[in-house]
Formats: sequence, C-alpha cells, structure tokens
Amino acid sequence: MDTEWIEAVRAGNPRAVARAISAVERGGPGAHAVIAALFPFTGRAQIIGVTGAPGTGKSTLVNELAKYYRRRGDRVGIVAVDPTSPFTGGAILGDRLRMQDLSGDPGVFIRSMATRGSLGGLASATFDAVQVLDAAGFDLILVETVGAGQSEVDIAKNAQTTVVVDAPGLGDEIQAIKAGILEIADVLVVNKADRDGAGATVAALEMNLNLKPKSEKSWRPPVLKTVAIRGEGTGDVVDWIGKHRAYLEAEHLLKAKERARFRSELDMVLQRELMSRLLSHLDGDEMDSLVDKMASREMDVYQVANQLLHAAERSQA
Amino acid sequence: MDTEWIEAVRAGNPRAVARAISAVERGGPGAHAVIAALFPFTGRAQIIGVTGAPGTGKSTLVNELAKYYRRRGDRVGIVAVDPTSPFTGGAILGDRLRMQDLSGDPGVFIRSMATRGSLGGLASATFDAVQVLDAAGFDLILVETVGAGQSEVDIAKNAQTTVVVDAPGLGDEIQAIKAGILEIADVLVVNKADRDGAGATVAALEMNLNLKPKSEKSWRPPVLKTVAIRGEGTGDVVDWIGKHRAYLEAEHLLKAKERARFRSELDMVLQRELMSRLLSHLDGDEMDSLVDKMASREMDVYQVANQLLHAAERSQA
Repeated sequence: MDTEWIEAVRAGNPRAVARAISAVERGGPGAHAVIAALFPFTGRAQIIGVTGAPGTGKSTLVNELAKYYRRRGDRVGIVAVDPTSPFTGGAILGDRLRMQDLSGDPGVFIRSMATRGSLGGLASATFDAVQVLDAAGFDLILVETVGAGQSEVDIAKNAQTTVVVDAPGLGDEIQAIKAGILEIADVLVVNKADRDGAGATVAALEMNLNLKPKSEKSWRPPVLKTVAIRGEGTGDVVDWIGKHRAYLEAEHLLKAKERARFRSELDMVLQRELMSRLLSHLDGDEMDSLVDKMASREMDVYQVANQLLHAAERSQA
Repeated sequence: MDTEWIEAVRAGNPRAVARAISAVERGGPGAHAVIAALFPFTGRAQIIGVTGAPGTGKSTLVNELAKYYRRRGDRVGIVAVDPTSPFTGGAILGDRLRMQDLSGDPGVFIRSMATRGSLGGLASATFDAVQVLDAAGFDLILVETVGAGQSEVDIAKNAQTTVVVDAPGLGDEIQAIKAGILEIADVLVVNKADRDGAGATVAALEMNLNLKPKSEKSWRPPVLKTVAIRGEGTGDVVDWIGKHRAYLEAEHLLKAKERARFRSELDMVLQRELMSRLLSHLDGDEMDSLVDKMASREMDVYQVANQLLHAAERSQA
C-alpha cells in the first residue's frame, strides 16, 4: 500500500477507503498490507454494534442513527453484514430507497460485506473493514448484523456498545431468536413502537432484565422506544449510546472491550492461517484418499484429522 | 465406549443414544471414542436438512414429516439446531405443545443442540449427533436449522436432501433472508399455504427457479404447498424427498454428497484441533503480551498471528 493511498484513506477519500475495504475483503497478503499500513492510525472511532431479529427494522434504525450523528457533525461509517439489510440482501430486492438520504453525503460511508465461503472469513473481513474506517477518521462506526446465527451475533457483541433491536408483534418464532441476543445488549430498543403491543414488548424486556442477577456497578440496559421510519426516538438512542460510552470510560472498561475484540479477531486469523498452512503441506491426492477411507468407514473424521496433522508436523520438521 | 453401550446405541436404546450424543456435544477424547466406535455402523440413514427463515413454520413441518414417516413404519431422528425451534429456543418459551404427539414414541428420537461458544463447534457436534443416530439405526434423520447465519445454512446443505421452507406474508426483511438459502434447495415448500398470498409466493419461487441456468440432467426443485399445522401436503413433501433420493441414486450422486459432508466435517475438526494444539504450545502470558502490542498499535493482528505461528513451529521442532 503506497504512501499516497494511505494518506488518501486517512483523509477519508471515499474511493481510497472503498479500495482498502475491497482489499481486506479479498484477504491474503494484500489485506495484511492494508491493515499493517492503517492499524497504527486506529483506536479513535466509537464502534457500535446493532443487531436484532429479522423484521425489527434495525436497518432503518441504523439509517436514522447515522442521520442523527451527521446532524451533530460526526462522520459515520456503516458496515452491514446482515443478509436482511437494505444495504446488502435488501438491496438485491431493489429496496434502495432508505439509503437515498444518506448516499451522496461525503460524511457517510456505507459498505455491505458479502457472505464469504469460509467460517470466520466474513467476521474477519468485517473487523478489518472497521479498522479501515477507524483509520479513515470516521467518528462512529455502526456495524449492523442480523441477530440470528452465532457468527453474526459474535460480530455485533465485539463492538464497544451493542444495541439490540426488538419490535412488537413478530410472532413466536422470531421472539425465540431474541433469547440468544438479549444478553449481549447494552442498549435495548423497541422499534415500531407505534404498533399494538409495544408496551407489552417493553414490559417483557424489562422483566427479562429484572431476572438477571444484579452486581453493584454493572450497567443496566435501558429499554427505549423508537419509530425509526419517522425518526422518532433516535435522539434517545444516541443519548444512551453516549451514556454507555461514558460508563465504559468511567469504569476503565474500554481497553478490556478492545482486548476482547482483538483476541476474537486473532483467533479467527489464526484458525484461517493454520488451516491454509496445513493444506499447503498436503497434496490433494492425500486428502482425497483419506476422505475415501471415511467413505469406506475405515477411518472416522478424528482419525483422519490426526493423521493429517501428524503428516503436516513431519513435513515441517 | 464399552461394548455393551455400543450395542445399546446400535439397538436404538433411547438412553444410550442420548448419552452418546451428550458425549459428542462435550467434545474432546470422549467424543472421539464415541465416533470411533459408532462410525463403522453409519451410512444407512437418509439425512434430510430442513431450513427456512424464522416464521415459516419449519418446526411444525419437521414434526409433521416425522409423524408421516412414523406411519410408514420408519424410525426417525430429529436434530434441531435452530434457536427458533420449539425443540430448542421455543421450548424455553414453553412452546412444547407441538412435541407432545411425538414424545413417548420410541421410534422417534428428538435432540436439540445447544449453541456452543466456538465457531464451528455447533456444526461439528451436529454432524457427530447425526452419525450417532445413523449408527442407532434411524431410517431418517431430519436436521432442522434456521436459514439465517452462515454456519446454520452450511449444516443444512450438507444433508442428502435439503428442504427449504418459505411462507407467504413474511415481510420484506424475512423475504431477503431467503435469497441466500433458495440456491441450496432440493425441495421447496410454501408452508402456511392457506394464507393470502400463497399463490404469489409459489409464483415468485418458480420465477426464481426459471432464472437459474439449466443443465440437462440437473434436478429442478418442486415448489410444494403445505399447511403443516393441519398436516396438509406433508405426503407430497415426503414423496418428493423420496424422488430426490432416487435421483441421487440414479445419477450416482450419493457418494459425492457424502464426501462433501465428510470434507466439511473434516475441515471443522482440523480447524479446532489446529487451534487447540497451537494454544497448548503457548503460555497465556505470551498471548496477553501480544494482545498488549495490538492495544498499543505496535503490531497488527496479522503480525501477531505470524509471530505466534512461528513460535509454535519453533517449539515443535
């Protein structure tokens, strides 16, 4: 990555930023070079995860939060890793309307992450994209993921502040998804609060919070109501994200959050690197003949894995 | 795993099967021993993945399929890895009603898989649970996952036949989830077909299928209508699952499907094993001090990963 390009990314030049994110999405040495060049300039941005079940309107909320921050003069980056988002999957369906009031504003950068083949590949590329936006001087980075699927939830919870979005009237199956994501919430939002049953949804969330064991200093997530499609309540959400940030600072928790994020990123990179090193030590025939042995039930998966690992160790020594 | 236990699992003794699945869920040497003992007896079962967006009623459909197969005299295993399923998340919400007509039937074994911390851990445990049920002589194994989240989709598509469930009137965000899962469908089901818009949903799916490039021999997924809650249309789904199985046999594709499943399982085991071997070569202080270097922006994640990998290679040599 040449000096000129680095400077252009740091200055927030949209084309340079887009090029850098494309490079980290492709992975490999190109991605490593981009991160090596930009990582020293990271650590300034506030990183906010927004997650929730499908149908809660979290993409609209992300959009409204971005507009609110823009009016305050903040520069906002959005990374959408949500297949249900208008920035990604929704865009395929032609639902680009909601993006229109953001696009064209140089203070906003929106990037959707494509689903990638390998486990952890998407999460890793998302982390790297956040680093690029951080180095590019964006004050706030909103990372939107759908709250279903373990890796998607993991991405959101590695933010500094995690906003979990709910809505009334989602039906039993969707309600059940929530169980897994409520515990990672720093701020709870009941969106579509003009619908019937909003009060009951708020009450259910409050009850859920009351069931949690209390510790003296711990943060209690507020339960906020919004009608994101009309921009109602977004100011409150922004206030509480700010309060949570102040809490993290007062309790000296920001560094710990960052370490957890780095550790989780490191694990993903290690897994991928270990795998690609292992495969580079093997020829395809060897792998095929071992899978043959599974097909004939001569060896099970753990026996095959052991044999491959031993072979790789021998070839390294 | 002692001989008596192996025999009890093979005879389909529910307590022995449950114990074996618990062992594979815990992972480690105990899991390896269970799989080593049982894997030689696998390969008979028909493995069917059922996936779909939340709210499509796929759990009800799985339930009805199980009942249908039971009436034919088949023994049925259900592995639910879906947080929205009544067998897992839904059960937490007290929605156990739908299970009642299956429980108590010794020809049915239902197991929900708990979400596990590590990437790939759940998928790996699910594969192993399928092996246990296969060795226990279940004729059909239904693997239910929510069609959101990459690893969840990966689990479903590794079945011999993948049923993708849709429903009318799910709203835009849910519709968008579908885009990612339609392409893995061998059988498409529009459930809740008594609702308004069922015809439009069928038409949309047919249109989507028509957009696909055609190859001469390739399987064209049927689009079937069901009202699973009343058991309507389940027979059709069973018929088409059977037709797909016959197609796989006629085209000699069963072995290829199995190899793909084994390969995917092997990759997950290798990733986990490689990681745990690497960590066993390192002391925690070393890891901590490297994360410190990330926190101070002296080293980025790829540089830290490289250093750890070199250190591990040195300590092996």
